[in-house]
Amino acid sequence: MSHFNANDPQNKSWIDIPSDSDFSIQNIPFGVIKKPDGQVVVASRIGDKVIDIASLFDLGYLSSLPFSKEDFHATSLNRMMKKGKAACSTLRNRIAELFNEKNNELKNNSGDQEKILLNSSACENLMPVEIGDYTDFYSSIEHATNVGTMFRDPNNALLPNWKYIPVGYHGRASSIILSGEPIHRPKGQQKPKDDEPPVFGPCKLLDFELEMAFITYDGKPLGESISTSEAEDYIFGMVLFNDWSARDIQKWEYVPLGPFLAKNFASSISAWIVTLDALEPFRVAGPEQDPKVFPYLEYSGNKNIDIHLEVYIQPEGSDESLVCSSNYKYMYWNQNQQLAHHTINGCNINAGDMYASGTISGKEKSSYGSMLELSWKGTQAVKLNDGSERKFIQDGDTVIMKGFSKKDGVRVGFGEVSSKVLPAK
Amino acid sequence: MSHFNANDPQNKSWIDIPSDSDFSIQNIPFGVIKKPDGQVVVASRIGDKVIDIASLFDLGYLSSLPFSKEDFHATSLNRMMKKGKAACSTLRNRIAELFNEKNNELKNNSGDQEKILLNSSACENLMPVEIGDYTDFYSSIEHATNVGTMFRDPNNALLPNWKYIPVGYHGRASSIILSGEPIHRPKGQQKPKDDEPPVFGPCKLLDFELEMAFITYDGKPLGESISTSEAEDYIFGMVLFNDWSARDIQKWEYVPLGPFLAKNFASSISAWIVTLDALEPFRVAGPEQDPKVFPYLEYSGNKNIDIHLEVYIQPEGSDESLVCSSNYKYMYWNQNQQLAHHTINGCNINAGDMYASGTISGKEKSSYGSMLELSWKGTQAVKLNDGSERKFIQDGDTVIMKGFSKKDGVRVGFGEVSSKVLPAK
Repeated sequence: MSHFNANDPQNKSWIDIPSDSDFSIQNIPFGVIKKPDGQVVVASRIGDKVIDIASLFDLGYLSSLPFSKEDFHATSLNRMMKKGKAACSTLRNRIAELFNEKNNELKNNSGDQEKILLNSSACENLMPVEIGDYTDFYSSIEHATNVGTMFRDPNNALLPNWKYIPVGYHGRASSIILSGEPIHRPKGQQKPKDDEPPVFGPCKLLDFELEMAFITYDGKPLGESISTSEAEDYIFGMVLFNDWSARDIQKWEYVPLGPFLAKNFASSISAWIVTLDALEPFRVAGPEQDPKVFPYLEYSGNKNIDIHLEVYIQPEGSDESLVCSSNYKYMYWNQNQQLAHHTINGCNINAGDMYASGTISGKEKSSYGSMLELSWKGTQAVKLNDGSERKFIQDGDTVIMKGFSKKDGVRVGFGEVSSKVLPAK
Repeated sequence: MSHFNANDPQNKSWIDIPSDSDFSIQNIPFGVIKKPDGQVVVASRIGDKVIDIASLFDLGYLSSLPFSKEDFHATSLNRMMKKGKAACSTLRNRIAELFNEKNNELKNNSGDQEKILLNSSACENLMPVEIGDYTDFYSSIEHATNVGTMFRDPNNALLPNWKYIPVGYHGRASSIILSGEPIHRPKGQQKPKDDEPPVFGPCKLLDFELEMAFITYDGKPLGESISTSEAEDYIFGMVLFNDWSARDIQKWEYVPLGPFLAKNFASSISAWIVTLDALEPFRVAGPEQDPKVFPYLEYSGNKNIDIHLEVYIQPEGSDESLVCSSNYKYMYWNQNQQLAHHTINGCNINAGDMYASGTISGKEKSSYGSMLELSWKGTQAVKLNDGSERKFIQDGDTVIMKGFSKKDGVRVGFGEVSSKVLPAK
C-alpha cells in the first residue's frame, strides 16, 4: 500500500504541467474515456495528458492495491467506487506517487509511458458514473433569499423551514448529460398571464443554475442513517453541475409537488470527478447557523470548501463573456449536513448517486448563480462583450461553467461544463 | 414466432389453476425468483406454480424467439425488457401456448415439467427490475380534491394547474422494496404546533398510499417525445405500489420543492409484473376531462383500466381488516397522458423506470386510498375487525394491498404487496 501524500504542496511531477492547469499532481481526478483506438477505460488527468488507469493496472503499477482488471476496463467508475473510500484514496495517492519527479518507476520507462499517457485532445470523455438516484438541494441562503424576495415577500424571503432543513428534492437521473453535449430548448405548458388560461410552446425563460454536485460511494442498508461525522467516508468526489431550468414551465407546474418538467429535460456535468481527498486542503468555515440546528445536523470542523466558480455565456460566433463569479464556500448547508439529512429517515444511498448543491449565489450581484437573479426576474439586462444583452438564455448560446481551488501555489480544478442550446425540436 | 393469443377467454390450461387465482393462463406475469437450489432466474407464474423461464429457454421451448440465455439467467428483467415490446409480447403468448390444454409439447414431457415448474411456496421472489428513475404522479381527482379540501379550501380544493397538467414529481428509486420486506418507522423533523418551533423524532402520522405503478421499456433519445398514441409501445406492465408517507414530516418539509424525506424512506411493490398486454381486455373509458386538454394530452379509445383494488390492515397477532376498496379505473389522467406529459420536454426514459399513479381514491368514503383521507386528517377513527381503531398506521401493523381485473370469467391479478411496520430504529 502507498503512503505517499498526493496533497503535499511540495509535490512536483516529471510531466510538464502548465502552471494554470486545473489538473496538477495534487488533483488526480477520475473519469472514463474512449481512447483513440476505441477502447473505453477508467482514466485520470495530469496537465494536458490523460492517464489510462486500465493500462497502469495491466502493466503492474497498481498490483499492491485492492482492485481487479474489471474495475478499470469499465464504462463507468461505479465498479471501482464499490471498493470504497480507503481503496480509492490509496489509488489516487499511488497514481500521484508514480508521477512524482522523484519516482523513477514510470519516469524511466518510455515504453510504458507510451501505453499509459495519452493526449487529452485525442481522447473522448464519457459519462464518468452510472447515476442511480439524483437529488438537488437548495442550500445557498443568498439564492433562496433572492428567489423568495422576487416571488414572495422581501421581508419574509426565506420560508419558515429553510433554516431548519437542508431543503432538497429528487430529480431525474436519466437526463444528466456530459459537458459538450448540446441541449434542445424544452417545450411545455406556461401561464404567462395570471388571468388567462395556460399556453403551450417552447420555453421562453431558459436559465442555467450554477451548482456543484457530489457523488457517493455505497452507503448503509435501508433504515440506517449516516451522521455528519461519517459523511465524508461516503463521498467520492465532486463535479461542476449546470441545473438547466425552464422558469416559465416551473412557475406553472411546481405547486404543490415541486419542479418536474422545468428541470428534467437536462442537467450537464463536467467530465472529471475531483475527489473529496483532493479538496481537503481547501476546507474553510461555513456561515454561522442561527437558529441552532437539530443535533443530527450539528458538525465540527471546517466543512465548507473554497472553490472559485465562474459562468460564461458565449453567443453563437462570438467570444465568451463572464456573467457570474461565485464560490462554493458560500453554502449555508454543507455536504455533511445534506447527507446526514438525506439519510436521517433511513433512506439508502448507492455508489454513483449524485447530489447537487442548488444554485450557488453570493452576496454581491456579480455572484448570482442564475439569469433569474442576474436579470432580477427579467427586469435588468445583462451586457455581454459583443454588445448584445441577455435576460435569459437564447438559442445558439453556449453556457460554460468553470471552477477551481487555489492555495499555497497549488491549483486543483474541475475543467469546465459547457453546453450549447439548440432550438426547440 | 407464436401467433397464439394468451388473452382468449376460452384458453384453459393443463395445469390445475384454482378458480380464484390471480395467475390464470390469461395473465402470465413476469418476475425474478431465487429457486430452492439458489439459482436466480426470470420466471412467470400460473396458478400456484412458478414457471422457470430460464429452464424453458435452456430446454429449447423458446428457440424461435429473439432472446438469449443471458436474458433469463438474470437478476432482473431489464435485459429481457431491452428486447422491446414486440419480443416480450410474443414471449408471453408463447408461454401461454405451452400451458394451453391443447398443446402437448410440455404437457407430455414430465421430465421437462419437473425442471420448469416449481411450487411458488418453495421459491423466493426478488425485486423484478433494476429501477433507474422513479416518478410519482398525482392523478386521482378524488384524492387531490380530498387533500385540497382538508389542507386548503373546500371551495377551491383543486389547484389551478391540476386539470391542465398530470402533476408529478421525482421520487427515490433506491428505497423501493419488495412485498414482504418490513419497514422501520422513519424519523424526521415535524412541526405539530404552528406557533412553536419544529421537533425531531419518530413520525407520528405514518400512512400508506394505495397506488399502482407502470414500468417502461427503453424510450427515445433525450430531446424527443412519446405521444399518447405511442405510449403503449413503451409500457411493459404494472405492479401494486404502496407509497409509504410520513404525513407530519411531509407537512413541514414540502414547501416549496415537494415531498422528500416524507416519502423516500420506502415504497413497496408487488413481486409479479402483470403485462399491459394482459390488462388490455379490461380497458374502460376514463372520466370526461373538462377543460379540454392541450393537443399533446389528447387521446382516443379507452385508456383507463378496470382493476379492483383493496387495502387491508393486519394488526400484530390479529386478522386483516378491509379498510379500502378502490379501482384504478377512477384515474382522471391515464398512463398514456402521463407518459406523453413526462416526455413532452424531451425527457428520456429507460427500461425499468417506474411511474406510480398517485393515491387512487374513488367518490365513496370506503374507496379513499390513504388513512389521511379515511380518518379525514385524523378526526375520524377507522374501526378494525379486532375492535381496535386506527387513525394512522401503528408499529406492528401489516398493510396489505391486493388487486385484480375480472371479465368474461377471466381473472388477471397482481397477488399482493404486504409490508409490516417496525418501530423506529
